[in-house]
Amino acid sequence: MNPVELIARKRDGKKLSPEEIAFLVQGYAEDKIPDYQMSAFIMAYYFQDMVCGNLFYDELASLTDAMVHSGEILDFSADFPLLYDKHSTGGVGDKVSFISTPIVTACGLPSLLLSGRGLGHTGGTLDKMESIPGIRVNLNREEMLRALKESGMVITGTTSAIAPADRKLYALRDVTATVPSVGLISASILSKKLAIRPSSLVLDVKYGSGAFMKDINQAKRLASCMQKILTELNRSCRVLITSMEEPLGRSIGNALEIKESIAILQGEKDGLEDLIQVSLALAAASIEMSGCSPAEAREKAVAALQSGAAYQTFCSFVEAQGGDVRYLEKPDLFPGARHCLPVSAPSSGYVTHIDCESMVLAANILGAGRFQLGDSIDHAAGIVTCAQRGTWIEAGQTLALMHSNRREALAEAEARILSAYRIAPQSIQKEELILR
Amino acid sequence: MNPVELIARKRDGKKLSPEEIAFLVQGYAEDKIPDYQMSAFIMAYYFQDMVCGNLFYDELASLTDAMVHSGEILDFSADFPLLYDKHSTGGVGDKVSFISTPIVTACGLPSLLLSGRGLGHTGGTLDKMESIPGIRVNLNREEMLRALKESGMVITGTTSAIAPADRKLYALRDVTATVPSVGLISASILSKKLAIRPSSLVLDVKYGSGAFMKDINQAKRLASCMQKILTELNRSCRVLITSMEEPLGRSIGNALEIKESIAILQGEKDGLEDLIQVSLALAAASIEMSGCSPAEAREKAVAALQSGAAYQTFCSFVEAQGGDVRYLEKPDLFPGARHCLPVSAPSSGYVTHIDCESMVLAANILGAGRFQLGDSIDHAAGIVTCAQRGTWIEAGQTLALMHSNRREALAEAEARILSAYRIAPQSIQKEELILR
Repeated sequence: MNPVELIARKRDGKKLSPEEIAFLVQGYAEDKIPDYQMSAFIMAYYFQDMVCGNLFYDELASLTDAMVHSGEILDFSADFPLLYDKHSTGGVGDKVSFISTPIVTACGLPSLLLSGRGLGHTGGTLDKMESIPGIRVNLNREEMLRALKESGMVITGTTSAIAPADRKLYALRDVTATVPSVGLISASILSKKLAIRPSSLVLDVKYGSGAFMKDINQAKRLASCMQKILTELNRSCRVLITSMEEPLGRSIGNALEIKESIAILQGEKDGLEDLIQVSLALAAASIEMSGCSPAEAREKAVAALQSGAAYQTFCSFVEAQGGDVRYLEKPDLFPGARHCLPVSAPSSGYVTHIDCESMVLAANILGAGRFQLGDSIDHAAGIVTCAQRGTWIEAGQTLALMHSNRREALAEAEARILSAYRIAPQSIQKEELILR
Repeated sequence: MNPVELIARKRDGKKLSPEEIAFLVQGYAEDKIPDYQMSAFIMAYYFQDMVCGNLFYDELASLTDAMVHSGEILDFSADFPLLYDKHSTGGVGDKVSFISTPIVTACGLPSLLLSGRGLGHTGGTLDKMESIPGIRVNLNREEMLRALKESGMVITGTTSAIAPADRKLYALRDVTATVPSVGLISASILSKKLAIRPSSLVLDVKYGSGAFMKDINQAKRLASCMQKILTELNRSCRVLITSMEEPLGRSIGNALEIKESIAILQGEKDGLEDLIQVSLALAAASIEMSGCSPAEAREKAVAALQSGAAYQTFCSFVEAQGGDVRYLEKPDLFPGARHCLPVSAPSSGYVTHIDCESMVLAANILGAGRFQLGDSIDHAAGIVTCAQRGTWIEAGQTLALMHSNRREALAEAEARILSAYRIAPQSIQKEELILR
């Protein structure tokens, strides 16, 4: 096979065979096909996908499968014939995994989530976990299996052995302006998920100012694309489309988000209704896949949360991965930031808009995130919001609290937070939180 | 400037500024921008050009100009304020340069053509010239100037110092399936032409089975694109669109084509009418640009050919570049091939089609061309056709003569030639030879 010919066929909108796709993906993973040919191929893919509307789901299934097979496959089905996995396309303040996963596991479904770190716009699940002293987020296969047996729930880092072709391709897309292809995004997400062969997969596709997909139609397209690829691969999944037009929950920042998750698992609800609803919906979708009716699944999820069973699962999960569970019982143990300063509303009115990108930027300035790979993270830093969209606020009232160990960062972060909020005399009609 | 952002803007159909284009082209020429980013950029360019119809001629002018300025500019305007150049997009049996250029020069217009070698589908002008013993085709700037002063006409190889960015980009396009973008083809051709700053430029865009552009509409688009770029760059040109549905003239192969050119310059016409018409039209277009009416220009061109003045110019040209002029006076001196075998018509009828690609392949098999860079060429090898399209031929009559020093190649070449000819009971209506 000749790479130039395959590029030309994709350029002309033709569908490549599974063998041809495997030739390209394997060849690229093994450095036999150079970056410059792969980048021409993926730019052609971008145009066929996003401009010409020539997307073939069976071809994308081949692409996903070839990326899965470029690396290690972690198959736990001998010990865990049922294994739940969940993926979120990521958003601001998204700590849903820490709430929905223990609910699902408390309902009897073992769960294994492979996660990543944060760069730029969203915080990483692993970074948030590392707020808990002692917790390990880089388990190997044996450690995953042991932890699964101990607590039934594992969240750990994806390894370099999983889908290396996807990692190489993603790095190339990042520097060749080919990231926003719905087809390539779908194949990339699924290649990392399918490497652990989950029996049930729930996808949370977020849209809005705090999500990768700004627009609901893009989110719908991504959701539908992933579902069609999974159908081609004979795998069942549930896809939820959820709104991310404001930070989910009240806090942004690593320890702050972990503390908020613990609070919810311990029964707190105030100002956290949206986060709880999304977490319950995702948990219920997984439980449903084990054979319940939607109503039963919802009931089981609510019971697991309210009874404290989910909280107990969370404690076992932290313990099994080496974390200090005393922090869960006494969240005051989490070290606080030196500076805790309110940002006050400049005028009275309804909060009509909270620009999530500005909020994340502010949190990162305060120390909560990375601007470059390798930057260290201040787990105590972040923002706690005090007014969600649709609420009335008086001038001078606190909009948000900044937590930081960097005194010099406070002024800039405050300006960013103020620029994120829009306050108007008329309230807004909020979009639906969860679409299925 | 950030290359990823520029790629993204081109991907989204935006126009880049001259500074942005120069940043990309210079950066690429200096290895500061890697191949993989440039290949993503040119694939995006391909789609905007050929699929989305978003071509900006001022941007293409910037691209052409940036490629010109990536290398040496050979400016002879101090000595030759008028300097004629001609470019053909290439075709089978195309020896027009050897006929039209001496006509133009004999009419008082100095001419300088920078040419290339052949690979694959078309023979190279330099390869053909080298059939003449002693002739030098790699003149440096001083030698070009001296030869121009001696004979008024120079045909020599383009140097590696001319438009190096174009050469690097062309090699990349070749391996990334991005060659057939009309915009990129135009900029590539013109960047090599404008490096010598010709005062008048005539472009011969060929279409048909023997040309790079198979289709007349593609040829028209290319012609129009080049004209618009030159208008943006304040340069005047004439563009002719000429048919290449059968080999131009009777012979294909290096020495055979040189001998045919000499024969025309010496007054031969039989079976060469198309070639003479195209040569005269191109010469007249150049002469017109020096300020004549079309009728005057045509008259001058015909007179220069008929009077033998063009032949005398050709002799001075060969002499000035070190070639042995005795071969021009006595073409029998050119060494013949050991084998000269006829290919006979399998049936009686009209010749309705001659597939040029098969003819070139046959000529290359006989030894006339290269299959790979670095292959040596047998100057004596080639094909002389005996029946043009539209002529009646009897079964057994000679369609073409094969010339070769490779006995083992004859059978395969004969099969290729037979497959190129279509013979039918009904004759055809030939397309127009020259469109302007």
